[in-house]
Amino acid sequence: MDALVIHAPLDLRIEDVPTPEPGEHQLLVRVRAGGICGSDLHYFNHGGFGTVRIREPMVLGHEVSGVVERTGQNVTDMAAGIRVAISPSRPCGLCRYCQQGLQNHCLDMRYYGSAMRTPHVQGAFRQEIVVDRSQAHVVADTLSDAEAAMAEPLSVALHAVRRAGPMLGKNVLVTGCGPIGALIVAAARRAGAAKIVATDVSSFPLEAAKKVGADVALNVAESPDALQPFAADKGSFDVLFEASGNAAALRGAFDVLKPRGIVVQVGLGGEISLPINVIVAKEFDLRGAFRFHEEFAVAVELLNKGLIDVKPLITGIFHYKESLRAFQTAGDRSQSMKVLMTFE
Amino acid sequence: MDALVIHAPLDLRIEDVPTPEPGEHQLLVRVRAGGICGSDLHYFNHGGFGTVRIREPMVLGHEVSGVVERTGQNVTDMAAGIRVAISPSRPCGLCRYCQQGLQNHCLDMRYYGSAMRTPHVQGAFRQEIVVDRSQAHVVADTLSDAEAAMAEPLSVALHAVRRAGPMLGKNVLVTGCGPIGALIVAAARRAGAAKIVATDVSSFPLEAAKKVGADVALNVAESPDALQPFAADKGSFDVLFEASGNAAALRGAFDVLKPRGIVVQVGLGGEISLPINVIVAKEFDLRGAFRFHEEFAVAVELLNKGLIDVKPLITGIFHYKESLRAFQTAGDRSQSMKVLMTFE
Amino acid sequence: MDALVIHAPLDLRIEDVPTPEPGEHQLLVRVRAGGICGSDLHYFNHGGFGTVRIREPMVLGHEVSGVVERTGQNVTDMAAGIRVAISPSRPCGLCRYCQQGLQNHCLDMRYYGSAMRTPHVQGAFRQEIVVDRSQAHVVADTLSDAEAAMAEPLSVALHAVRRAGPMLGKNVLVTGCGPIGALIVAAARRAGAAKIVATDVSSFPLEAAKKVGADVALNVAESPDALQPFAADKGSFDVLFEASGNAAALRGAFDVLKPRGIVVQVGLGGEISLPINVIVAKEFDLRGAFRFHEEFAVAVELLNKGLIDVKPLITGIFHYKESLRAFQTAGDRSQSMKVLMTFE
Amino acid sequence: MDALVIHAPLDLRIEDVPTPEPGEHQLLVRVRAGGICGSDLHYFNHGGFGTVRIREPMVLGHEVSGVVERTGQNVTDMAAGIRVAISPSRPCGLCRYCQQGLQNHCLDMRYYGSAMRTPHVQGAFRQEIVVDRSQAHVVADTLSDAEAAMAEPLSVALHAVRRAGPMLGKNVLVTGCGPIGALIVAAARRAGAAKIVATDVSSFPLEAAKKVGADVALNVAESPDALQPFAADKGSFDVLFEASGNAAALRGAFDVLKPRGIVVQVGLGGEISLPINVIVAKEFDLRGAFRFHEEFAVAVELLNKGLIDVKPLITGIFHYKESLRAFQTAGDRSQSMKVLMTFE
Repeated sequence: MDALVIHAPLDLRIEDVPTPEPGEHQLLVRVRAGGICGSDLHYFNHGGFGTVRIREPMVLGHEVSGVVERTGQNVTDMAAGIRVAISPSRPCGLCRYCQQGLQNHCLDMRYYGSAMRTPHVQGAFRQEIVVDRSQAHVVADTLSDAEAAMAEPLSVALHAVRRAGPMLGKNVLVTGCGPIGALIVAAARRAGAAKIVATDVSSFPLEAAKKVGADVALNVAESPDALQPFAADKGSFDVLFEASGNAAALRGAFDVLKPRGIVVQVGLGGEISLPINVIVAKEFDLRGAFRFHEEFAVAVELLNKGLIDVKPLITGIFHYKESLRAFQTAGDRSQSMKVLMTFE
Repeated sequence: MDALVIHAPLDLRIEDVPTPEPGEHQLLVRVRAGGICGSDLHYFNHGGFGTVRIREPMVLGHEVSGVVERTGQNVTDMAAGIRVAISPSRPCGLCRYCQQGLQNHCLDMRYYGSAMRTPHVQGAFRQEIVVDRSQAHVVADTLSDAEAAMAEPLSVALHAVRRAGPMLGKNVLVTGCGPIGALIVAAARRAGAAKIVATDVSSFPLEAAKKVGADVALNVAESPDALQPFAADKGSFDVLFEASGNAAALRGAFDVLKPRGIVVQVGLGGEISLPINVIVAKEFDLRGAFRFHEEFAVAVELLNKGLIDVKPLITGIFHYKESLRAFQTAGDRSQSMKVLMTFE
Repeated sequence: MDALVIHAPLDLRIEDVPTPEPGEHQLLVRVRAGGICGSDLHYFNHGGFGTVRIREPMVLGHEVSGVVERTGQNVTDMAAGIRVAISPSRPCGLCRYCQQGLQNHCLDMRYYGSAMRTPHVQGAFRQEIVVDRSQAHVVADTLSDAEAAMAEPLSVALHAVRRAGPMLGKNVLVTGCGPIGALIVAAARRAGAAKIVATDVSSFPLEAAKKVGADVALNVAESPDALQPFAADKGSFDVLFEASGNAAALRGAFDVLKPRGIVVQVGLGGEISLPINVIVAKEFDLRGAFRFHEEFAVAVELLNKGLIDVKPLITGIFHYKESLRAFQTAGDRSQSMKVLMTFE
Repeated sequence: MDALVIHAPLDLRIEDVPTPEPGEHQLLVRVRAGGICGSDLHYFNHGGFGTVRIREPMVLGHEVSGVVERTGQNVTDMAAGIRVAISPSRPCGLCRYCQQGLQNHCLDMRYYGSAMRTPHVQGAFRQEIVVDRSQAHVVADTLSDAEAAMAEPLSVALHAVRRAGPMLGKNVLVTGCGPIGALIVAAARRAGAAKIVATDVSSFPLEAAKKVGADVALNVAESPDALQPFAADKGSFDVLFEASGNAAALRGAFDVLKPRGIVVQVGLGGEISLPINVIVAKEFDLRGAFRFHEEFAVAVELLNKGLIDVKPLITGIFHYKESLRAFQTAGDRSQSMKVLMTFE
């Protein structure tokens, strides 16, 4: 069975890897679609990000859907042929964070395709995978395999929106309209935001953001002062979702965010210099958002019911044997939002 | 100018009342549509509810939309001909609750068409009305006058949903699908509820609830045990919106509400007997929801953008000269959700 | 080894029961002090409460402290001779509520001395007991055994106070000053309440409430209108802790509770009839509080540091061979707050 | 009547200024004690801070207490001779933030002794002052004038603690033990913190922090790794109050703060560079805290009842004619916490 294994920057190989037998409470799933995430791109292009580096060969991928091939002997509520989206979140369940319901902070997390720990946790860009029953979520017939694979990044977006608290009637700014930023637009809209303004430095993602719900999309590269009209009376926005990882985006929003405004930081970046006096004087509330856990089930349910439509964000689908082209395309912000691969 | 004045139960008269000049910061509005609320029906049928009784003639009505006829001399951002929805919430702005942002608990509230205080606050079922600039919210061309008048009951529903806290991904039960219950279904859906089950004792409102977003609609008169499948593992619902005012509905939901479940009580009723040990042992959180204030602007914005569609709930429109028929129809749950009158 | 076993109402026997060996992660503890709880009194006097009835012999007791006698082989951070307070809360750790941090709603809870499930969970009124390492909390030398045993009811009070949210600067009413009510007074004071008013129908518990921090103690049997001065402007209290289980206490507080006031219901009772319209119109927030989990560690820490003083609430200590007299005294509100037994 | 007027850095003059008549709802107060705040020191030493600069002569001071000398004609609940603490917070009451209960973000705030707006708002270091009735809070006989003047900085600390949410049982770190940091220690202890660790780079403030409630006080100048033992399992602290304004203090705490840890930033500083990936991955919640409003009444009540004791923080009292020495002493962290002046 084939898998996509990263060895070093730009050295992504198709290799034959064995597939284990499913345990009692497990499933063997034939993977059908897998989305390329920003972290996959980082491994591919740079061998990692920050202090996280590839130290041994690792199967990439954590955004996948497929079809059940065989069930473990104690699985009674699942059968071969059922299409599923697969959550890559595998917390230990026993540590003090799991026991507080903070599974995304598990002390022993085994998240697919992550080099955060060594040995690395092998990923899901492979033709077959064994998963726990609890990782598999049944997908509606109305969804394509690619849409089903979007459950994972959508979960990230749902978790970010939840970190902001109640959304109904709020005025929302989203800075950075890559796949996660655009999915946050969709999630915030679904969660009842009254007004959504999105910014980016490129026109292609801004168009996508409008398709999934942004009321206004502003190109702050072309019009650096585009947000100024929102600065009156100490600001217009209740919530900022910062999904660019760019310091200028975060700082630039401080003028247009109301006192007590909530900033949910999703985008990763390095050191960011912030005017601490402004955070104090306007009493901002800056919250990190990291991965997700129970939101995966919510993502699948919202997709299944058509309550969130991710189709406008799927901009390319390649066969896994064309993975190089897939990764190159995925990295081109002028033409790509989410790029996926098929594994048949 | 005509107004609909209640004198006693079933004694609703069309009377000529004067219209004052708009003050500096006010507007003269020609009323076009007005919805009949449950409280209007109570005044009409019974002369009041609970300890609130009509003690002097009172113009009914608080759910109205219209078109600006003339503006006060210091109003610069409004003009004749603009269509508006009118908020009936007029808090004092100075009392300790207003200064805490709890305008719906204002110590000196003057809510339209209410006999809670004497002299009563005269209502808005009239051909012309003078309102403060801040009460008028511009309506999109895509909305009918009747839809615009729905901004008021939608505000009640939005406030109720807000009282429940974050809604994204929640499993929601709504008991009672009259106009407010159905609007709560629509608002909870817009706010991101993952699953919505609605119950009622009548099939007509259940059909309406499905049209505005309920996944499942259960007739608990026909099938008293219809909720039982949701009782496993201490319950399935995160939130209950109780919009029937019926003790059986509230008590009946306790089995299917999860521990720490939130109950938002919207429906009015008299004394309700509750099993206090269950509230303690499951640590329920039972919250009242009363009227609204800033939600009116949100309601108009969501309607204007088509993010909530109230058309399925408008079941009858009468001319105000047929008010008797309008009120009788509004009171018939087997055929009516929201009934409105026109005032041209 | 002796244990106190309830067979039927008023039939409490001293019986010889075996003590198992401690497992790898367990401790053998010699019990020194045990407090009599209201539920113990219910089993003793009535054979249970509500639908919970004794169906087989059961060792009573869940408020105990003792000294470690022997440690399991894998316990490295505990030794014989160390004094400990023992948490009776033993959740499964695996069910969906445990995984959400809601251990007090565990689907498989084994709380000491409880007939909620059959076979009943045997209690801790015994000379020796084997506990999990995680149940034992080291007690400061400054605390007596009896004070250490108070960690359990104090945990209940801390949990109730936490259910009310932030307490700093709040105006608090406590209705019912039995042991739990009085401990809530102490906990609310420690948590920063600005003003605490306590009510009861008896003078002895009111005196105790003052000793642990109440600013004002009102006998509402002698002065039924004693709370009226607090009714101005829709009410004076931010939070009510209802610890009497008496419907009159709860209803009587509605007039003096501010809009959006929080009611934490701790006291158990049967059916309580409530004016639902008042709950709606004042938007009260009525929350159940049930047992505790992580609060036990907090209780021991606050006791150890002298930040909460429970000595004024200890009104009687008996040897376990005088358990009949202990239970009779504990049930007499005119002279008892907390009554404990020693087990040496 | 004398007042202390700042003209330029180090140019603080005693000048004769007129005292107006109290209006209908006002009081004439003879000022007795006034505390020197960090902002007063900034005006004195540097002519301001950040972009806030003295542009015209300004009376300094906003932490004062005094005795009522005369009451306005419509003041019925106050009389000459009553001792009061005076809140310097004077919001407009009408702007959108006041109407949301966010008075500290008032669009038209007139805070005593502040050069944030021009004309500057004159301060309270003067022998007589006219205040609104609502600014004056009656002080208990048990408090000295100096303690009463501490109500203002205590309000800042109470507000900061409130910004952190519930405190009962929390593990708290306070970085920076100047007057505000030390008062936060006292406030967090009163609010029920289970463990409080304080850090500073100087031993004098650390000793003061211990006197007002810190369990542990660590000199991170002498022992830069003093916090390391708290880093296990992703961190030990639930809440950090950052009161130093020092980037190293904030960054240094990230290792010892639990996932979802709350950071309340109180200390002012300039640009601070932060590792944004850590904020994201640990999902910190970084909140600014700025001034206060309703906390002033709470501060006076807690002081009046002896629930918070600020005496250990009063390290110097000078006559206003020795203001130069007072300001120089106040600026010396090796011997001063709060320095006050008398104005008789």
